[in-house]
Amino acid sequence: MTLKYDVLVIGGGHAGCEAATAAANMGAHTCLVTMDMNKIAQMSCNPAVGGIAKGQIVREIDALGGQMGLVTDATAIQFRMLNRSKGPAVWSPRAQCDREKFIWQWRTVLDHTPNLDIWQDQAEELIVEHGQAAGIMTIWGAELRARCIIVTAGTFLNGLMHIGRHMVPGGRIAEPAVPRFTESITRHGITSARMKTGTPVRIDRRSVHFEDMEIQEGETDFHRFSFMGSGRPLQQLPCWTCYTNRNVHDTLRGGLADSPLYNGQIKSIGPRYCPSIETKLMTFPDKDIHPLFLEPEGENTNEMYLNGFSSSLPMEVQIEALRKIPALRDVKVYRPGYAIEYDFFDPTQLKHSLESKTISGLFFAGQVNGTTGYEEAAGQGLVAGINAALLCGGNKPFIMRRDESYIGVLIDDLVTKGVDEPYRMFTSRAEYRILLRQDDADARLTERAYSIGLAKRERYDHWMKKKTGISYLEHFCETQPVKPREINDALERLGTTPLREGCRLSDLIGRPQISIEILSELIPQLKEAVNKPENRKEEIAEAAEIRIKYKGYIERERMVAEKMHRLENIKIKGHFKYSEMQQLSTEARQKLEKINPETLAQASRIPGISPSDINVMLVLIGR
Amino acid sequence: MTLKYDVLVIGGGHAGCEAATAAANMGAHTCLVTMDMNKIAQMSCNPAVGGIAKGQIVREIDALGGQMGLVTDATAIQFRMLNRSKGPAVWSPRAQCDREKFIWQWRTVLDHTPNLDIWQDQAEELIVEHGQAAGIMTIWGAELRARCIIVTAGTFLNGLMHIGRHMVPGGRIAEPAVPRFTESITRHGITSARMKTGTPVRIDRRSVHFEDMEIQEGETDFHRFSFMGSGRPLQQLPCWTCYTNRNVHDTLRGGLADSPLYNGQIKSIGPRYCPSIETKLMTFPDKDIHPLFLEPEGENTNEMYLNGFSSSLPMEVQIEALRKIPALRDVKVYRPGYAIEYDFFDPTQLKHSLESKTISGLFFAGQVNGTTGYEEAAGQGLVAGINAALLCGGNKPFIMRRDESYIGVLIDDLVTKGVDEPYRMFTSRAEYRILLRQDDADARLTERAYSIGLAKRERYDHWMKKKTGISYLEHFCETQPVKPREINDALERLGTTPLREGCRLSDLIGRPQISIEILSELIPQLKEAVNKPENRKEEIAEAAEIRIKYKGYIERERMVAEKMHRLENIKIKGHFKYSEMQQLSTEARQKLEKINPETLAQASRIPGISPSDINVMLVLIGR
Repeated sequence: MTLKYDVLVIGGGHAGCEAATAAANMGAHTCLVTMDMNKIAQMSCNPAVGGIAKGQIVREIDALGGQMGLVTDATAIQFRMLNRSKGPAVWSPRAQCDREKFIWQWRTVLDHTPNLDIWQDQAEELIVEHGQAAGIMTIWGAELRARCIIVTAGTFLNGLMHIGRHMVPGGRIAEPAVPRFTESITRHGITSARMKTGTPVRIDRRSVHFEDMEIQEGETDFHRFSFMGSGRPLQQLPCWTCYTNRNVHDTLRGGLADSPLYNGQIKSIGPRYCPSIETKLMTFPDKDIHPLFLEPEGENTNEMYLNGFSSSLPMEVQIEALRKIPALRDVKVYRPGYAIEYDFFDPTQLKHSLESKTISGLFFAGQVNGTTGYEEAAGQGLVAGINAALLCGGNKPFIMRRDESYIGVLIDDLVTKGVDEPYRMFTSRAEYRILLRQDDADARLTERAYSIGLAKRERYDHWMKKKTGISYLEHFCETQPVKPREINDALERLGTTPLREGCRLSDLIGRPQISIEILSELIPQLKEAVNKPENRKEEIAEAAEIRIKYKGYIERERMVAEKMHRLENIKIKGHFKYSEMQQLSTEARQKLEKINPETLAQASRIPGISPSDINVMLVLIGR
Repeated sequence: MTLKYDVLVIGGGHAGCEAATAAANMGAHTCLVTMDMNKIAQMSCNPAVGGIAKGQIVREIDALGGQMGLVTDATAIQFRMLNRSKGPAVWSPRAQCDREKFIWQWRTVLDHTPNLDIWQDQAEELIVEHGQAAGIMTIWGAELRARCIIVTAGTFLNGLMHIGRHMVPGGRIAEPAVPRFTESITRHGITSARMKTGTPVRIDRRSVHFEDMEIQEGETDFHRFSFMGSGRPLQQLPCWTCYTNRNVHDTLRGGLADSPLYNGQIKSIGPRYCPSIETKLMTFPDKDIHPLFLEPEGENTNEMYLNGFSSSLPMEVQIEALRKIPALRDVKVYRPGYAIEYDFFDPTQLKHSLESKTISGLFFAGQVNGTTGYEEAAGQGLVAGINAALLCGGNKPFIMRRDESYIGVLIDDLVTKGVDEPYRMFTSRAEYRILLRQDDADARLTERAYSIGLAKRERYDHWMKKKTGISYLEHFCETQPVKPREINDALERLGTTPLREGCRLSDLIGRPQISIEILSELIPQLKEAVNKPENRKEEIAEAAEIRIKYKGYIERERMVAEKMHRLENIKIKGHFKYSEMQQLSTEARQKLEKINPETLAQASRIPGISPSDINVMLVLIGR
């Protein structure tokens, strides 16, 4: 049986769901192929979305018209803005979610997306015709054909799970692995390799001594993930913190001989920044204590997630070690942690659009590109979905620059540098951090997304109103004079130098001790200006304040970025025959040939390419 | 790693969930072993509970203190009392449920049941020591030990799925099969065989032309599944009816060469009363039309279930045939129907307690005993859970007679007659139908369930109040006189003979045209009596009316049942050496030896045992 579509998405995880809804919302006739419609967007590991840099990605997904922010808001059971004591460049929203409601919220989104079908089946073989992706065959014998195919298979391709010396094939606990699909891709000249990830024990709430833990409550202010969102409907729940100790570590060390990570059973590399507890012991042998976070899995369930205790040690070692933590002395677990190895595809084989350089119309997104994290997966899925839809319509690809979004940084890093371990986003990976804030993702992206038809009119109007509000308030602060006698008493109380002469409100807001909120209590006209917008006053005031306070930094980074645009604008793809360029180092020749960068700026970011290599190319190109 | 329990339940379906909660609620330290905690009590086939005779089973489960009725009420999106135009002996409640909410409602019940742990893993090997079940080993190397083990593995043991000529191992679509556990049981002298079942396509609501279907609304009266229940909280939704036609049948017939049911691929027998659509065509070649019911899968989802169209024909044949039904001319499916073959264990190897005759402490319940249906499974699970808990406490087993419950009929049929096809309950299987009504399951069972500690005090008190209410109203009707002049006008209007002389209210209620409801509008004292109970007036009035109206039938069946009790009371187990009883037919000798019945009554129900065989035993036993 044959079914025909514009876009096929293979896999219903975070990448696949964003890809499918994006393509469909842009008008492509799309089919999401998933093994299990009841596990759509399952959070395979911790029941949380966002966090440092990841939270920014979710805000960007939302600003572009993606779904993850809306789904997260609707299912959040705890919300926090991380890094709030630091500068707004690194403020990062994070939410605990109800794992099951997250799935069903996504399922509802998919169910109500026009142009989107779901086919419950398992991919077995990629069909390629004349160097062009043409469709897939499924294990049940369905032939699904499409102009574009997006592979978002997560950890399912040849997945192999490990607990101690026990190994079981599977894509995720209790779910089958996908055995033959990888081979049908590599047959066409795309290489694959193996990566590893892991997940911790799940704990029965009733067995925990909460009196021996520290409570961590969420926040109740106006922040949320979606720029469109209207709140957090679910009951808000606390998380809990406890710590490992020497006894715990001794027990864990006793199991290392049976650790698949250290006895040679697992050969592939796991995520550096989500290490297993045994890896933490090996990496930091002097540390006697590691923090653990006990997180609820949902509003009603007793299941809890022990963040920080990922492991593939034998289950008896995991449980014995846990019981040496006072709060967990009587712990009951639903299942131990486990590790999983899976196939991924070197992302330097992709263009910035996430389309394969080898097989046209074939896109890859998410964990199959060597990343880790739901947000990184979703961001890629969104970009792949957008570009698949654009390709179907004969349009140019949608590429975000590194100064435009974390998603742009992510994809540029992947396709330029490749990965030798699961790639996780950090703010430190972005050179223009102050330009890529959680508060201004809409300013950066919503108009562009509207122009390609992904962000809808409602979102566009919503942003334009907010934009007007921010401009008004910013202008007001920049023009409104303030006299010493109006403010000096307050300034002294706040521990900041009094004014000698009049200034603008914006000059005061630039001081670290001063906020728009504080000033508006002192200056009635400001209060009036702050209260002017009909909706989202706090959001607008926050955005205006950040723009005023960090104006200098923002302008400086913007200038650096503009300079880099010149290199970004020098297209070099197809211009050089690298293998014959004796002026370049051998390493540079090989790497440039492999990556085949689009622009001189991209070339400059390839590991092993030196500034002198760039100069050679600049000269040859005649600049 | 070893974990120790009183009772282990292997499998988290309808049987396993009832077994685990029953054992735990009776005080046994219980562990439910399930592959996937997110698919607890998954309705693998249609999203509905109850129906003819099955609805009575659910009411019995509830009366006993089981959970299925409560979970169903909480997740019902349509409720109907079937057979309402017939006598109350065959009234059967049925509900459509939200498939996903059903799972999570059950998960919440399990999560909040004391003494009950969940272990997410897969059974690999049964441990038997000295002829006694001792525990299991799992695929992840956990050793779980217990005094009693209840196997409720559904279709997972060596499950093999079929669509056309394609075969995929699995316990259910998208879930792995369990490969080695059966063998670890049969090694100890228990035999297994294969059965088959199937399920229909799942349809995208958006592709259906509802204007070409008949709507079927639910009911909004006081009926529900649980005697404790307080209503149906979810939005109530309609179902829809359409029909096959000659074109549909021709298309289906065209695929028969590739039908696994008819090309020899499937050798095992499927459920006679849930046949696939292709089996309907073969069994009723003259019928040009079969009804189909399109049922919603939940409150919010577009997924719909096409009841009546179970199939394992090639997917293109299924879809092509569907498109020849006017309402489904543009149908989109999420997945085609499929068949599944799985291992079951001949239930004549069990005692009435559902304990194995061969391995003590080993119980079997549900589909592994050769039954079909969630309700049949749940009823068995409850009985196995009860008896495992009783065995752990050194108590006598809990057995329900055939005149006490449909569950009693079900288990007696299974262990006495065995199965040669999946066993489904019908009212016709019960010889005491008027004693086994949906309205009086509490009267039959709640006091017994309270005495063994399963039904809790609240349920007991609840029933005792209702019992008092029924007695009061019944007595009132049986003693309250009514005079011709009070009522004759009304009787004539109702089309029934006027009174010549005074009578009791109960005499009038005995007439088919008269109900307590009608009479209470005419006789103010009756209205007052009906309105007396604080709660559940309608339920009490209905119960009293049925008792009055059908008094004669009830008493007659009760007498027959009492007579049969005499045979039930003649224990013969261990009394005869059947192989040496030349007075019996060879068939009788063989069958009696195999079944080894507990009582003479059970012996009389074994297929192939004649009344003269029973007489021989009666004589020999000295009666």
